[in-house]
Amino acid sequence: MTTTRTRVAIIGGGPAGLLLALILHRAGIESVVLERKSRDYVLSRIRAGVLEQGTTDLLRTVGLGARMDREGLVHDGFDIAWRGEMLHVDLRELTGGKTVTVYGQTEVTHDLYDALDEACVPVIHEVEDVTPQDITGSAPFVTYRTRDGEQRLECDFIAGCDGFHGVCRQAIPAASIETFERVYPFAWLGVLTRTPPIQDELIYANHSRGFALCSLRNPQLSRYYIQCDADDDVANWPDERFFDELQARLPSAVAGNLVRGPSIEKSLAPLRSFVAEPMRYGRMFLAGDAAHIVPPTGAKGLNLAVSDIHYLSRALIAHYLDKDDGLLDAYSETALARVWKAERFSWWFTSMIHRFEEHGAFSQRIQEAEFDYLADSEAAQTSLAENYVGLPF
Amino acid sequence: MTTTRTRVAIIGGGPAGLLLALILHRAGIESVVLERKSRDYVLSRIRAGVLEQGTTDLLRTVGLGARMDREGLVHDGFDIAWRGEMLHVDLRELTGGKTVTVYGQTEVTHDLYDALDEACVPVIHEVEDVTPQDITGSAPFVTYRTRDGEQRLECDFIAGCDGFHGVCRQAIPAASIETFERVYPFAWLGVLTRTPPIQDELIYANHSRGFALCSLRNPQLSRYYIQCDADDDVANWPDERFFDELQARLPSAVAGNLVRGPSIEKSLAPLRSFVAEPMRYGRMFLAGDAAHIVPPTGAKGLNLAVSDIHYLSRALIAHYLDKDDGLLDAYSETALARVWKAERFSWWFTSMIHRFEEHGAFSQRIQEAEFDYLADSEAAQTSLAENYVGLPF
Repeated sequence: MTTTRTRVAIIGGGPAGLLLALILHRAGIESVVLERKSRDYVLSRIRAGVLEQGTTDLLRTVGLGARMDREGLVHDGFDIAWRGEMLHVDLRELTGGKTVTVYGQTEVTHDLYDALDEACVPVIHEVEDVTPQDITGSAPFVTYRTRDGEQRLECDFIAGCDGFHGVCRQAIPAASIETFERVYPFAWLGVLTRTPPIQDELIYANHSRGFALCSLRNPQLSRYYIQCDADDDVANWPDERFFDELQARLPSAVAGNLVRGPSIEKSLAPLRSFVAEPMRYGRMFLAGDAAHIVPPTGAKGLNLAVSDIHYLSRALIAHYLDKDDGLLDAYSETALARVWKAERFSWWFTSMIHRFEEHGAFSQRIQEAEFDYLADSEAAQTSLAENYVGLPF
Repeated sequence: MTTTRTRVAIIGGGPAGLLLALILHRAGIESVVLERKSRDYVLSRIRAGVLEQGTTDLLRTVGLGARMDREGLVHDGFDIAWRGEMLHVDLRELTGGKTVTVYGQTEVTHDLYDALDEACVPVIHEVEDVTPQDITGSAPFVTYRTRDGEQRLECDFIAGCDGFHGVCRQAIPAASIETFERVYPFAWLGVLTRTPPIQDELIYANHSRGFALCSLRNPQLSRYYIQCDADDDVANWPDERFFDELQARLPSAVAGNLVRGPSIEKSLAPLRSFVAEPMRYGRMFLAGDAAHIVPPTGAKGLNLAVSDIHYLSRALIAHYLDKDDGLLDAYSETALARVWKAERFSWWFTSMIHRFEEHGAFSQRIQEAEFDYLADSEAAQTSLAENYVGLPF
């Protein structure tokens, strides 16, 4: 057993954990990141790609703006398609100048690793049996195993950034945590292709055959999704069938512009809303997917992880630099207030843009009325837009 | 069998039918109104009390503004209460000057009768066995019975303004009509008292014990509602219990101002959303509750009847005066477009302000997030306000 010591033990080397380590480092606060997988594995994960205004602002503040501003695509709006029509949601106009930036989570993670390397902040990969210990005591620690044997990392605080399936939330006794969940009765089948996207901006399409989303990572990399049954299988969807189905769900004005290409990645993702409360247990703080999951419709997952880290880093800095624990004590409540608003928006956008055959004819008409109202109402579009670009931190 | 002839046979002497008769009369188009109940009965019904801006504008246009403008109470806003807090929704500010007017349906009906009397437009009360006939032929007629015997009223068109339980919609073959319905798992228990209202403006209160609404008819007449089980019974609610329960659901800042008094009327109303499509069958046109029902939460029922009559009267006038049937042919689609938006709003407001224990903890939190978002967002408040004062005709 080798024992080391740091101030903040960060469990999970995804964007939440890495960003926390970087912000703490910039403030002179030591941390260690523990990640179960290899760096190559983490960097190969295909995840979200739409960054809110507040996320890009924060990334720039911590010195991660250069490549993002060079390669990221600023989107002033997106389209909603239904009944063959397209409604353009002009984010910039509706929100007084705010936009979103298309820049893959993989790229953000890449930039974070580069910055942490340069700063010599330790990120320890391929650790096993990570276990937060004595969380409610005054001297918590994390045990884990590397190829060199058993390790013990002593710390002041543990940051649980290890995702929905991670160990941190599961280390909290059931009596000390309450969970809220909705599982949607369908999944997203996603395809990544090295083809020019169907158009510059995203298209969210509601169609009687089901929802479709045309997204992208860059001008040569397209990301497409179609709603499918939750128990469907990727094997049922050879590329041609996928593109036929996608094309059938798009308005004729754009469907013809779809460029097909072999899929680089194809996967089925369930849609889930999930929140665990509180986001603190003793000296452990949960952040990102470890505490909450949103359906991908509103592109809020990564952005919520970033706002959690904003609140948590600010609170830890106040603890160490100002000897003030007010923000730490308020962390769970502060973070959850924003989380629940994003959960609400993601649930609403998911509900209005997908097909729910089992909800019946009345709900179907209400959904159509929602579209018709949205098309007519600047207030409704403004509400959609301000949520899409991200509510303030 | 006595046979008479008119241009438009109007079945139902509620506000929809009476208003249609008056507008047609002003345009020189003859009609006859048939009403199953007595005039006294119609005038004793306690119904809605909040008129949209467009409704009051229309009533003024047809000469019904005098008493309404004298006795009606213009409301610039209302309050939403939850978790002990009050959020003021400033309708006038949010909608660029629009308001609602508190003026009971009973009063509107009274004014309509007075105007029709003055104009000598026939309203025939206490008719029995009203039956629209040959609706799809070129010479429709209505048969009915009075104390003088069997009657036959020949006409060009039939207006079905006879409410949800009326004969007109039921005269349409099932294959020619589609219905959409949602029944909510609770009811409203309403009490009318001759007491000063708790405050000048309405309060919509979400509370863990259930929804409550403080409304009014005039400065000496209060109308209060509480959410209760759908299978509850008025007999279970003596006045004291009703007021105890109402008071328990209001924020402490206002609860103490509640003035109790003996109930003049006490009734239980189920909450239902319902739409029948299309709103035309042959030469019969449905309007108001005959075609659609909304839960009372958004106060849209009477107002939708008025907008239907606006579209229908305009179409009939174009038919007779301009020999143009375009508006008649478009009536169902035109009316339904507005109906569905009001259905959407009424469903949304009902869903966000009531307690739905059976929807589970996730939905409860989403509802709370909806309130929190509404409190913070001018766009969300504007959307609520523009629907509450009424979308444009």
